[in-house]
Amino acid sequence: MIVVMSAAGTEAQRNAVIARLVDLGLRGQEIVGESRTVIAVLGNVYPELRDELGTMDGVDEVLRVSKPYKLASREVQQDDTVVRLPHGVAVGGGRPVVMAGPCSIESESQLWEAARGVRDGGAHILRGGAFKPRSSPYSFQGMGVPGLQLLRRAGDEFGMPVISELLSVRDVAAVAQYSDVLQIGARNMQNFVLLEEAGKTGKPVMLKRGLAGTIEEWLLAAEYILNQGNPNVILCERGIRTFETATRNTLDLNAIALVRRLSHLPVISDPSHGTGKWYLVKPMSMASLAVGADGLMIEVHPSPDHALSDGAQSLTPANFAALMRAGAALGAALGRPFADMPQRVA
Amino acid sequence: MIVVMSAAGTEAQRNAVIARLVDLGLRGQEIVGESRTVIAVLGNVYPELRDELGTMDGVDEVLRVSKPYKLASREVQQDDTVVRLPHGVAVGGGRPVVMAGPCSIESESQLWEAARGVRDGGAHILRGGAFKPRSSPYSFQGMGVPGLQLLRRAGDEFGMPVISELLSVRDVAAVAQYSDVLQIGARNMQNFVLLEEAGKTGKPVMLKRGLAGTIEEWLLAAEYILNQGNPNVILCERGIRTFETATRNTLDLNAIALVRRLSHLPVISDPSHGTGKWYLVKPMSMASLAVGADGLMIEVHPSPDHALSDGAQSLTPANFAALMRAGAALGAALGRPFADMPQRVA
Amino acid sequence: MIVVMSAAGTEAQRNAVIARLVDLGLRGQEIVGESRTVIAVLGNVYPELRDELGTMDGVDEVLRVSKPYKLASREVQQDDTVVRLPHGVAVGGGRPVVMAGPCSIESESQLWEAARGVRDGGAHILRGGAFKPRSSPYSFQGMGVPGLQLLRRAGDEFGMPVISELLSVRDVAAVAQYSDVLQIGARNMQNFVLLEEAGKTGKPVMLKRGLAGTIEEWLLAAEYILNQGNPNVILCERGIRTFETATRNTLDLNAIALVRRLSHLPVISDPSHGTGKWYLVKPMSMASLAVGADGLMIEVHPSPDHALSDGAQSLTPANFAALMRAGAALGAALGRPFADMPQRVA
Amino acid sequence: MIVVMSAAGTEAQRNAVIARLVDLGLRGQEIVGESRTVIAVLGNVYPELRDELGTMDGVDEVLRVSKPYKLASREVQQDDTVVRLPHGVAVGGGRPVVMAGPCSIESESQLWEAARGVRDGGAHILRGGAFKPRSSPYSFQGMGVPGLQLLRRAGDEFGMPVISELLSVRDVAAVAQYSDVLQIGARNMQNFVLLEEAGKTGKPVMLKRGLAGTIEEWLLAAEYILNQGNPNVILCERGIRTFETATRNTLDLNAIALVRRLSHLPVISDPSHGTGKWYLVKPMSMASLAVGADGLMIEVHPSPDHALSDGAQSLTPANFAALMRAGAALGAALGRPFADMPQRVA
Repeated sequence: MIVVMSAAGTEAQRNAVIARLVDLGLRGQEIVGESRTVIAVLGNVYPELRDELGTMDGVDEVLRVSKPYKLASREVQQDDTVVRLPHGVAVGGGRPVVMAGPCSIESESQLWEAARGVRDGGAHILRGGAFKPRSSPYSFQGMGVPGLQLLRRAGDEFGMPVISELLSVRDVAAVAQYSDVLQIGARNMQNFVLLEEAGKTGKPVMLKRGLAGTIEEWLLAAEYILNQGNPNVILCERGIRTFETATRNTLDLNAIALVRRLSHLPVISDPSHGTGKWYLVKPMSMASLAVGADGLMIEVHPSPDHALSDGAQSLTPANFAALMRAGAALGAALGRPFADMPQRVA
Repeated sequence: MIVVMSAAGTEAQRNAVIARLVDLGLRGQEIVGESRTVIAVLGNVYPELRDELGTMDGVDEVLRVSKPYKLASREVQQDDTVVRLPHGVAVGGGRPVVMAGPCSIESESQLWEAARGVRDGGAHILRGGAFKPRSSPYSFQGMGVPGLQLLRRAGDEFGMPVISELLSVRDVAAVAQYSDVLQIGARNMQNFVLLEEAGKTGKPVMLKRGLAGTIEEWLLAAEYILNQGNPNVILCERGIRTFETATRNTLDLNAIALVRRLSHLPVISDPSHGTGKWYLVKPMSMASLAVGADGLMIEVHPSPDHALSDGAQSLTPANFAALMRAGAALGAALGRPFADMPQRVA
Repeated sequence: MIVVMSAAGTEAQRNAVIARLVDLGLRGQEIVGESRTVIAVLGNVYPELRDELGTMDGVDEVLRVSKPYKLASREVQQDDTVVRLPHGVAVGGGRPVVMAGPCSIESESQLWEAARGVRDGGAHILRGGAFKPRSSPYSFQGMGVPGLQLLRRAGDEFGMPVISELLSVRDVAAVAQYSDVLQIGARNMQNFVLLEEAGKTGKPVMLKRGLAGTIEEWLLAAEYILNQGNPNVILCERGIRTFETATRNTLDLNAIALVRRLSHLPVISDPSHGTGKWYLVKPMSMASLAVGADGLMIEVHPSPDHALSDGAQSLTPANFAALMRAGAALGAALGRPFADMPQRVA
Repeated sequence: MIVVMSAAGTEAQRNAVIARLVDLGLRGQEIVGESRTVIAVLGNVYPELRDELGTMDGVDEVLRVSKPYKLASREVQQDDTVVRLPHGVAVGGGRPVVMAGPCSIESESQLWEAARGVRDGGAHILRGGAFKPRSSPYSFQGMGVPGLQLLRRAGDEFGMPVISELLSVRDVAAVAQYSDVLQIGARNMQNFVLLEEAGKTGKPVMLKRGLAGTIEEWLLAAEYILNQGNPNVILCERGIRTFETATRNTLDLNAIALVRRLSHLPVISDPSHGTGKWYLVKPMSMASLAVGADGLMIEVHPSPDHALSDGAQSLTPANFAALMRAGAALGAALGRPFADMPQRVA
C-alpha cells in the first residue's frame, strides 16, 4: 500500500501516519519525490487499512499494490483448473464445452424436445432453470423442485450433466440434490451468504458476473466459494450494463481474455443473455471461442416465440446445430476443438 | 404494446402477428405509417409478450406503452405513503428524517458513543450494521446477532427507532426481531426471495437501489415487497456505478426527483455510500434535501480512522452536528423542516 | 510514479527498470514489501512514462501519484477564480449567477420574448445558440452568424452579457466578436484544437463536461485553455451518460462538489441538459445551488412545445421566475445569495 | 411516432395533441388500450416532433418507430459497401483487411522500421498519426504535416495505402493531400463540422465510435458524411467507456455484429485502443475476425517501451506477425480469408 500525501502535507502529518502504522505492527517508508512525498506501507496489510489511512490529515490518496484475491489468482496456481462432471465431461483445460437448453423448464415435453435438440446438436451439458429471477413479480417464476426433478431425469435419459440456478440459500439443498452444477446468477454475484453456502456443498459452482461487477469483484466473489475449500468454480461472463441499449447487455469478451490471464479458473461465455437477441448469438459465440472461452452457454427452445421467458434470445434447435457446426470448424482452426461428447454411462 | 414491423415486412408476416394475438385472446390493430406499419396490441398484455412477439418474422421491435409496476405507482396511489415507526417517527409526507450511526457495530462502547453523538446531533433513527456485505471474504463481516442485540438496547436507551441490514433469508427472523426497519442493501436489490420474505414480516423495509439498478427495476423490486401486502416500503438512493472513479459511486439525485414524481413511496438519500468521501457528505446532504428527499442516511463513527468498515466515508459526531445545523437552516428556507425529534417513550 | 513488479518478477527485471530510469535522467528506489516489490520513480516524470514502463518485462502495473493537471488545481491557486463579464457580472467567488435563454435562437421575436422573460425573472446572463450540434444531419442546425448578431443586440438592449456556443475553429472569430463568453459544448470537451483557439482569444470560455468525460479529463481540458495564458475559464456540469435512461443524462452533482475542492475555477450546473425533462429542472436547480454550484444554466423558451430544439427540457418564463424565487430563498438560507443583477450600462 | 398519454389524460388533452398534429400537416390516430390511450402519428414526421409533443399536457412519453438514419441503413442499401483504395485494396464485402503501424509517427527511421514490419507481417494499409489528440496539453502532440509527408513516402515505398487522423477542420486539406483515408477519432465522432468537411473531400473516411457513442448516434454521424454525397465511409469500433477499469476501454464486439446487420457500411475493429493492453490485442483480434469485422486496426511499434504514445497497447513486429498467422488460419476456417496483399503499383 502506498500513502500519497497531499502537496501541502506537513512533517507532523507524515509522522502521524508513520506512528499509526507502527501502532498496527507495520512500518512506513518515506519516499520524497519531485512534487510530493509518499509513504510505502511495509508488513502484512489488510484491505480496510486503505480506508482508515485515507481519512488521516494530509493524506490525499491511498493506492493498493497487491491484488485482493488470492486463491483465484494465477500467481497462486499456474495451471488451469479443470472441473470434472459426470459423463466424463471436463470444464477447463483447453477444449471448450457447450451448455445448452431452455431458459426456463416449462413442461416435460418442452424440456425433452429441447434436450434432444441440444444433445443432437452437440451440447455437452443440459441447462434449464427451475428457479427464475424475474424483475417483475408478475412474471413466471419457474417450476421449482418439480422442474429440477424433470431436469435430472432429462439429464439421465439423454446422458448429459445438468446445470440449474439457485436464487437463495433456501434452494441450495434442492439444487445440490438434483443438479450437477449449481449456477449463481448475475444478480447474486455478491450475495455472499449464497456464495458460501454453495461453496460448502462441494459441488461445482458456476458464478456469473454481475451486471455492474468489475473483474476484481467477480474474482473476489469466486474467492468466497474457493475459501470454503471448494475448488470447483467455473466463471461465466454474461454481459455487463453500459449506456448502450441497442443490445440488452454488453457481452464483455475483453473480460474473458483478461480473466484467463489473471486466474486459473475456467470461464464460459453466455451470448444469449449477453446480447438478448437471438441473431447475435451465433456471431458472438464464434467470437467467444476465438477469444479463448472455455465454453458457451446457449439458450435453446423448441419454439422461442412461445417461450415463457427470454424468447427473444433463444435459438431453435436447428439454429443451434448450425452454430455448433460453425464452432467446430473454428475450434479445429484454433487448435481448440470442442470437448468430446459426454459418455452415456456417467 | 406496439409491434413495429420491419420496412421490408410482408402482409403475411403482419397477418401472422395478428393471428398470434387472437390466439392469445388479444387483438391487433394495424396502423400504416409513412415508412412502416405498426400493430397496436389491445387487451390485457403481459410482460413476456414483448419477447415472444420480438422473435416473429418481420418484427423489428416491440415497444411497451404501460409501466410494469403498479402498486408503487402514483397512478394507483396519489398521496405520499407515510411509514410510521416507534417513538412517533414518520418517514414520508413532507418532513425529512435522518438515519445515522456507524456502518458496522463493532462494540458496545463504539455504538454507545456513536448513538449519543447522533442523538445529540439531531438524528431520528439509529443505524448500525450487524451483517455486512463485504466484497472480500477476508474483511470484517459484522458481529451478527450480538450486534443486533446491542443495537436494540442502544435504540431503547437513546429513544430512537433502529434500522439494520439483512443479507439473506437466513437473517430475516433475527433482524425482524431486533430492528424496527429491515434494510435491503444495494447488492440485494434483485434478491427476489429476500424481498418477498422481508415483505412477509409486515415490518417496514428500506430498499436500496442497486449499483446498476434502473429506476424502473428499483420500483419493480419494491413491488415484490408491496405485493406481499406490506405497504411500508422506503426507497433509498445510494449511488450508481458509472465510468467516473473519482467518487466511489455517483449519487443520483435526478433519480430522487423522478421517483418522487413516479411513486408515492418515501425516498431517502445516502450520501455516505453515494460518494465514499466524508468531505462530500455535507454538500451532497444539502443537495439531497433541496431536491426533495424524504430523509438522509449518514454514517457517523466516533473515530472514522479506526473504523472496521467504510471509515473514509464516515463523519465524526462533530461534523455530523454541523451538517444537521446546516440542514435545519435549509429545511426552514424550503418549507420542509426536519421531522420532530423522536419521543423518548415509544 | 510507482512501478509495481509482478509477484514472479526477477532481480534482472527490476534492474532493467532501474537502468531504464537512469537512462532517462531519473532514479528508481526499490521497496521490498510482504508480497511484492515496487520501484518508486524519482525525478521529473512525464505522463507517457507510465505506458513505457508498463510494457517492460516483469512489470505488473504503474501507478501515478501526482495529478496531471496543474494550472487548474487548487494546489497552484488557493483562491477562487472570478471571471469578470460586462455589466458588472462576476462568475465565481461565492454568489451564484444564472444564465438563461433559449436553446436555439430562432427569430428576433422568439429571442426578445425569451430575453425579456429571463431578465424579468432575474437572470444575469443571456444564453442562446446560433451554431447547434445536432446528432442528426436532418435537424435544425442553428441560424449561424445572423443568430449571433441578434443575440448581441438582445444582450445590449436588455443589459446582460451573452453566451453562445462555438462548434468549430471556423466559428471562433465570429463567436468571439459577438459573444461575451464562448461556450464549448460537451461533444467538444476533447476537441483540443478548439480549446486552444478559444483560449487564444483571451475571452471567457465556458467548458462543458463531456458525456463520458472524467473529472480529471475535464480539468485537463481546462488546462488546454489556461495554458494559452487565458485564466477566464468557467466549468459547466451538464450530465454524464450512464445506464439509466429514465433521465436524458445523469446530472452529476458529486462532480460539482468535488471540482470545487480540486480546482479554483467556477463551476456552473446545467439541469436542463442534465435531466432532459422540464419538470426536473427546478428540483435539480435547488440541489445544484445547495451543493455549492457557482451558477445555473437554464433553458427558457416562450413556448417550449414549439421550440426547434430541446423543447422537452425548456421552462416557460413563468416557470423560470418561480425557480428564481425558490433559488433566492435557498441562497439566503445558505448564505450564498444570487449575484447582484447586471448593471444596465456595461 | 407513438404518443403515449398518461393514464389520467383527458379527452381535451388528446384532442389538443391531435389538433397540433393537424396544424403540422400530420394526422393522429387514437388507439384505446386496456390501461391507456396512445396516439399514432401519421405523415412525414421529423425528429424534433418528439420533444415538442413531449411537453404537451397529458403526454407521458413519445416513442419513435422509425430509425433516424437513412443513407447508412441496410433498408436503403442491401449490399455491402465496398470502399476502394489505391494498390487494389478494398474495404468491405467479405475479406478482412488489416491496418497497422505506429500510433504516432516519430521519425523516419521509426516509421520505416514499423512499415517494413507490418508489410512483411501481411498488413494491407499503413497507419500513422501526425496529429494526436492527447488528454494532457503537456503530452507529445504529433509531428504535424512533416509527419504526413513521411507517411505518404512510406506508403509509396512499401506499396500500401495510408490512413491518418485529422483533429480539426484546419487539418482537412493537409490530411486529404497526403493520406488515402481520413480518420476521424473517437473524440470527434460528433464534431459535426469536421464530419461535413471530411465528407466534402470525397476521400474515404474512417469514423471511429465515440467513447459514449450509441450505435444509433454512430450511424447518424456517418450520415453526416454520406449526406455530403460521399459514400466511402468505413466505421471503426474502438471500445466504449464503461465502469470496468481493468481494461482501458471495453471493445464492444456486440456492436460490430449488430452494425453489420443494421448497415451496409464496412466496420473495422481496433483492439489496441479497445483494450489498452498489448497482451489482449491478439485474442481480441481473433474474436473480431470471428464476429465478422471487415478488418483490424493494430498499433505496431518497433520498440513499444520507447513509444511516444500508447506504448502499452502496441505490438512488436514479431508479435504482429504471429497475430497475422493466427488470423489467416482463422479466416480460412470461417471462409473469410484476409484480402489479397496490396499491389506494388497503385
